Amino acid sequence: MEVFYSPQIENGICVLPEDESVHCVRVLRHREGDEIYVIDGLGTLYTCRLTDASPKAARAQVLREEPDWGAHPYFLEMAVCPTKNLDRYEWFAEKATELGLDVISPVIGDHSERKVFKSDRLRRLLVSASKQSLKGAVPTVQEPRTVREFIASAPKDALKLICCCFEGETPRTSINDALEMAGQAGHDATSVIPDGIGELQRIIILIGPEGDFSREEAALAVAGGFVPVHLGPSRLRTETAALTAVEAVYLKCI
Amino acid sequence: MEVFYSPQIENGICVLPEDESVHCVRVLRHREGDEIYVIDGLGTLYTCRLTDASPKAARAQVLREEPDWGAHPYFLEMAVCPTKNLDRYEWFAEKATELGLDVISPVIGDHSERKVFKSDRLRRLLVSASKQSLKGAVPTVQEPRTVREFIASAPKDALKLICCCFEGETPRTSINDALEMAGQAGHDATSVIPDGIGELQRIIILIGPEGDFSREEAALAVAGGFVPVHLGPSRLRTETAALTAVEAVYLKCI
Repeated sequence: MEVFYSPQIENGICVLPEDESVHCVRVLRHREGDEIYVIDGLGTLYTCRLTDASPKAARAQVLREEPDWGAHPYFLEMAVCPTKNLDRYEWFAEKATELGLDVISPVIGDHSERKVFKSDRLRRLLVSASKQSLKGAVPTVQEPRTVREFIASAPKDALKLICCCFEGETPRTSINDALEMAGQAGHDATSVIPDGIGELQRIIILIGPEGDFSREEAALAVAGGFVPVHLGPSRLRTETAALTAVEAVYLKCI
Repeated sequence: MEVFYSPQIENGICVLPEDESVHCVRVLRHREGDEIYVIDGLGTLYTCRLTDASPKAARAQVLREEPDWGAHPYFLEMAVCPTKNLDRYEWFAEKATELGLDVISPVIGDHSERKVFKSDRLRRLLVSASKQSLKGAVPTVQEPRTVREFIASAPKDALKLICCCFEGETPRTSINDALEMAGQAGHDATSVIPDGIGELQRIIILIGPEGDFSREEAALAVAGGFVPVHLGPSRLRTETAALTAVEAVYLKCI
């Protein structure tokens, strides 16, 4: 199933951006009258009929809409420090999109070697990953902030976890136990997600850089309501730790 | 912590292969008298003192041994069809090694586009991945077989799961439920693992190619004692499915 992406769907008419138009018309040789599938990146799949096979701005008429297409039953924000090798970060983002997540927040820690991150490239990559994995919603990529800023601005009513490799003053629980306890306690970490998915648990997970969080960052996080968790005994690279956290949430729901 | 690999440790003397010797002596500039760490790939970490800083075959005297270094409390064999793009298979193998697994069996399915697989390249990669993730045991890579051969020769006394994307005559359970039920039922899927790890659950998980298993392969697997499982609602690439299965086993034990 080939899926296109358009941020411009209004009044029953969908206009594809130039790169998607070229792919639709030149590469896949779609002609006027063909049915095509288009996601809006916000959660809906549109079945459309191509009315103008222009390789600059192909136009199509919406026939059917399917909201919450490929949606997952949680709201997950991963705040992950960029890796030295950006391929590894992109790999994490692609795999996490396949499984299902909502927001990626690049955060810069005290021990981060990489202090600069370009969100635009990742945004483009996640459009592809969402189309490939048949999901109507493309995860949002935030602009980078410091870990300290991120902690200070994190919402109160979410289940917030911080994965550290060391024991601070508050003992760490396994991520499984933290997710389990939050579920059992009827944790008030709920948030209304638009478009009828209903009340979902909002989960925020913070993953540090190769050199881990500083003691100060971990203490600030705990003071800010983050629960310190571990990901088991294996020494995981940053991107593997981040994906393991997404897997823990995903596997809790299947 | 820098770790070297040697398959030649006997009578308290460790000899490094040429590539490891060059890395030890030329790149990291270790000198006679230095303490170095060496894994044997079978599970043990050796702390050694360098006695001959030869870049062809460095020699070191064993000071201490730590068996089961970085071991995990299960025995997991992943039988995974090679992906069209081999990078993706190698990525899976690297990440699975970080988490912990014991055997990778490349298997060729009826719908596999890639019918040939070179195990040697993967073996070298897994030595690096094991050193990087601080594990004494390097996962074994089997020579490729067909899915049908693999099913026919799979041991009777293991917990065997097959991940298919379609419902066969036997309904699929989630991988979590299958692992849970096997644990509760005191499944006889135990096997004595060498060197004192003791009785561990032996788990075999079969992952199909991009085009999934054929109906015949799935039926053969079920007849051979494989439990059909699913990995949740997301459409996962082969390598993501394989890693998700490893994560499900890993996360059950943390």
